Amino acid sequence: MKKLVKIAKKIIDLGADFRLRDKEVFEHWYERTHLAPEFLARFVYGIAEIRRNEIRKSSYIACAGCEATVSILALYPLIKHNLIQSKIIIDAKMSSSQAGLKPTLSSHHPERSGSVRSYMPTGHRHTAEIVQELNLWSNKLDVAISATALDMVRGLLVTIHTIPGENVTEKDVWKAYRKEYQKEPFIRIVKERQGIYRYPEPKIQQGTNFCDIGFEMDRVSKRLVVIAAIDNLVKGTAGQAVQAMNIMLGFPETTSLEFPGLHPV
Amino acid sequence: MKKLVKIAKKIIDLGADFRLRDKEVFEHWYERTHLAPEFLARFVYGIAEIRRNEIRKSSYIACAGCEATVSILALYPLIKHNLIQSKIIIDAKMSSSQAGLKPTLSSHHPERSGSVRSYMPTGHRHTAEIVQELNLWSNKLDVAISATALDMVRGLLVTIHTIPGENVTEKDVWKAYRKEYQKEPFIRIVKERQGIYRYPEPKIQQGTNFCDIGFEMDRVSKRLVVIAAIDNLVKGTAGQAVQAMNIMLGFPETTSLEFPGLHPV
Amino acid sequence: MKKLVKIAKKIIDLGADFRLRDKEVFEHWYERTHLAPEFLARFVYGIAEIRRNEIRKSSYIACAGCEATVSILALYPLIKHNLIQSKIIIDAKMSSSQAGLKPTLSSHHPERSGSVRSYMPTGHRHTAEIVQELNLWSNKLDVAISATALDMVRGLLVTIHTIPGENVTEKDVWKAYRKEYQKEPFIRIVKERQGIYRYPEPKIQQGTNFCDIGFEMDRVSKRLVVIAAIDNLVKGTAGQAVQAMNIMLGFPETTSLEFPGLHPV
Amino acid sequence: MKKLVKIAKKIIDLGADFRLRDKEVFEHWYERTHLAPEFLARFVYGIAEIRRNEIRKSSYIACAGCEATVSILALYPLIKHNLIQSKIIIDAKMSSSQAGLKPTLSSHHPERSGSVRSYMPTGHRHTAEIVQELNLWSNKLDVAISATALDMVRGLLVTIHTIPGENVTEKDVWKAYRKEYQKEPFIRIVKERQGIYRYPEPKIQQGTNFCDIGFEMDRVSKRLVVIAAIDNLVKGTAGQAVQAMNIMLGFPETTSLEFPGLHPV
Repeated sequence: MKKLVKIAKKIIDLGADFRLRDKEVFEHWYERTHLAPEFLARFVYGIAEIRRNEIRKSSYIACAGCEATVSILALYPLIKHNLIQSKIIIDAKMSSSQAGLKPTLSSHHPERSGSVRSYMPTGHRHTAEIVQELNLWSNKLDVAISATALDMVRGLLVTIHTIPGENVTEKDVWKAYRKEYQKEPFIRIVKERQGIYRYPEPKIQQGTNFCDIGFEMDRVSKRLVVIAAIDNLVKGTAGQAVQAMNIMLGFPETTSLEFPGLHPV
Repeated sequence: MKKLVKIAKKIIDLGADFRLRDKEVFEHWYERTHLAPEFLARFVYGIAEIRRNEIRKSSYIACAGCEATVSILALYPLIKHNLIQSKIIIDAKMSSSQAGLKPTLSSHHPERSGSVRSYMPTGHRHTAEIVQELNLWSNKLDVAISATALDMVRGLLVTIHTIPGENVTEKDVWKAYRKEYQKEPFIRIVKERQGIYRYPEPKIQQGTNFCDIGFEMDRVSKRLVVIAAIDNLVKGTAGQAVQAMNIMLGFPETTSLEFPGLHPV
Repeated sequence: MKKLVKIAKKIIDLGADFRLRDKEVFEHWYERTHLAPEFLARFVYGIAEIRRNEIRKSSYIACAGCEATVSILALYPLIKHNLIQSKIIIDAKMSSSQAGLKPTLSSHHPERSGSVRSYMPTGHRHTAEIVQELNLWSNKLDVAISATALDMVRGLLVTIHTIPGENVTEKDVWKAYRKEYQKEPFIRIVKERQGIYRYPEPKIQQGTNFCDIGFEMDRVSKRLVVIAAIDNLVKGTAGQAVQAMNIMLGFPETTSLEFPGLHPV
Repeated sequence: MKKLVKIAKKIIDLGADFRLRDKEVFEHWYERTHLAPEFLARFVYGIAEIRRNEIRKSSYIACAGCEATVSILALYPLIKHNLIQSKIIIDAKMSSSQAGLKPTLSSHHPERSGSVRSYMPTGHRHTAEIVQELNLWSNKLDVAISATALDMVRGLLVTIHTIPGENVTEKDVWKAYRKEYQKEPFIRIVKERQGIYRYPEPKIQQGTNFCDIGFEMDRVSKRLVVIAAIDNLVKGTAGQAVQAMNIMLGFPETTSLEFPGLHPV
């Protein structure tokens, strides 16, 4: 970092080192000493939809984990508007590009193809980021993630099981999302009564910077199910970085992020 | 039914008509009048692991829904041994063979391939069966299912999010499963510390009658995650029927169900 | 057609009706009477790389079949430069989007997923287009297609087995392709000695208008193998139409066709 | 080998070392010195359908390469009955399990998934085995293989382009296959006029020891297309070995090879 800051005025980090503001939280989840804690306070968490103003004024940005990005975007309007209880369960469906470039036995095609693999039933590190960011509007969240790897290369979908507050209706949920997201260029609420694509689907998001969000109130069990999806390699990483860079440098925010996706694919 | 009972002494029904003992529960979930309610009491629910003795004495068997089969088998030892609280969330990952034989736009390959489709975020009919059967050992369960269809032909995996009772440990869970299942020919507890297949995987169960069950206690959130998988076309339907038939007719229970599966596949 | 020509000055047809200039050839391969043969002579075949000047002056364009597009582009420099013999075998690997929008038993996911289906071992209609166009430079071609449908939604790859002329070398082949294609914006010669993507791959062409071409001389058997790939839904149909429209209307030829593709996908 | 022959009376080799009877042919194709040429003459090539009697009397068996197995079985009746000319082109569609157990960048799921990869357009080593075995009935064959790797774990399909002799009809082809294969337990002729599975498909062969063969005469080009498929991990390797072992040891030939396959899968 000491070398880097001398040669670069602006830094956008795609790794996990500067996402958590609290050195001890980092060390708890990542089980290693943080090597440059003096920089932690100078990094802004890179999700434009909740940190736009800070990003604008910042020089150092820490892009969010893909899993954290989609979960935070799905949840923050509900928490901000006090629509759900503190216990949140995120069931994440992951793709193989999230495991990185290095071939391993577990990424070997005969083993990985066709898998529905519970690679992290508990203990996902992104939990810490999610709690940190959502605690801007709450302070007693109990967030749990179970992550399952599917036979797909790109894309990430979360099925979030939450408990709505008393008397909360689907209309209330609509209102909260509309209020927070109606001007957002990369958030779409997907909730159709008909057709095949009634809820968010990573399939039709490949290459795009969209975060699609849908939801359904359970009429039997007291439960609000929120479904959200992104392309982990765009909105979950590089696209998020470009969006933040655009803001930081004063470019139009959607510059080079306007690819609408392909169908069918 | 009236015609059928005249020509067949023994009936094994793979459909949903005789799974629920209560006509009104059936009519609530299936939204139609039951046409032969007088037979409801004569059918035995077909999961051998919990109804073996009744199946032995029965002539009419109603095979369980695939989704209900795997969920009930994963949960009943925990409920019987009073290890989990009443609120249960089942996040089901489904395959395309569950949607039946009829081609539709939603099963059309260009639309269905690569999908991670939230086809039933709430309101899954199998909820009723699960509650009915688990209520043999409880009577206040709150079961909720969210079902997501993946790009696979066979196989069904559930990630079940439960809240363990106070002081319940992984050892307690092990004990409960061992007690109930140690003599079961088609149940395997899959929970490895190393390797690729640490938890149940439908990939390596294709064609088999196994129900594989694994679990992990969450050390951060108070949660016990149970993972279970079956081949929906075997243990979830036809294999279950054969197993029940073997019992009903006095054959060795594993007759014609000994296929161990393929790897890799 | 009579109605259409009154309301549209320019027509680009994505169907097969006006690709073949000879009514009888059409009727032979499509086994039906041609309903508007008086228009056949007014349509220009839509592959810009071989008909650019005619497209520029034309008002009616008949886009090529996807299979014909990739085969013609792969073969015409070899035939024009007299590098191969007249007997040509095209082994085509097809995707499910080529079968159209209508769900059928054969497009039903459980049947179509995982297939390597010899759906047309002989008798592919696109043979007629290929012969027609390549006969601009030859007149005794014997072209045979075998088409196999794979488990993919988009993309088309042909493995073309040809017999090179006496003393023809890889260098000669390189020269012919360079001469014909060095200025073409949508043709790439892909022939690497190292790496994973040594030959054309539909996987990394999704959404692009490229036709990628590679080749290898067989040192044992007398054979020149040519490999070519396109995205059937872009260069094979709609992208080809846009490219032709750009030329016909005097727009820059690459307008709206500059998407470079995604990786990994 | 010297150690092995002391401890084992019977040897079945699944590798490539003893398939080719001619040391020089081996060294030409495998580009290394053969380390035990003195054993070459004692090994019998393991395809039961053509070497059954020799296998019965043998103690050392060299199982055929998967690609060679399916090609030889598809071709030998045609050559024996003198129905095709000497020039043969084999277009092979391969699966990822053929590349072995070691993870590489090319087997890494994000790179391998969705691929249609021309990994060996020419120069496939199995050519030598095919020529050696088919030369039992011919001696001037010109066999060329192009191998393309698909996104599947198991299975191997070959599309073989041959030139039929003058006046050869489909009936002649039927007759030749019937004559050679009518008593074979693991060969099926698959050639249907209707339905989805009109030709061999690796999809429905997974786990089985079948070699399925189909064919179609081209009415336009002078060509006989032969399609054949096996599960490379059964009939292409281990199943072939078991079949040969059964013969060598005097067991019923189909012992433990009777798995009929799964559908859908």
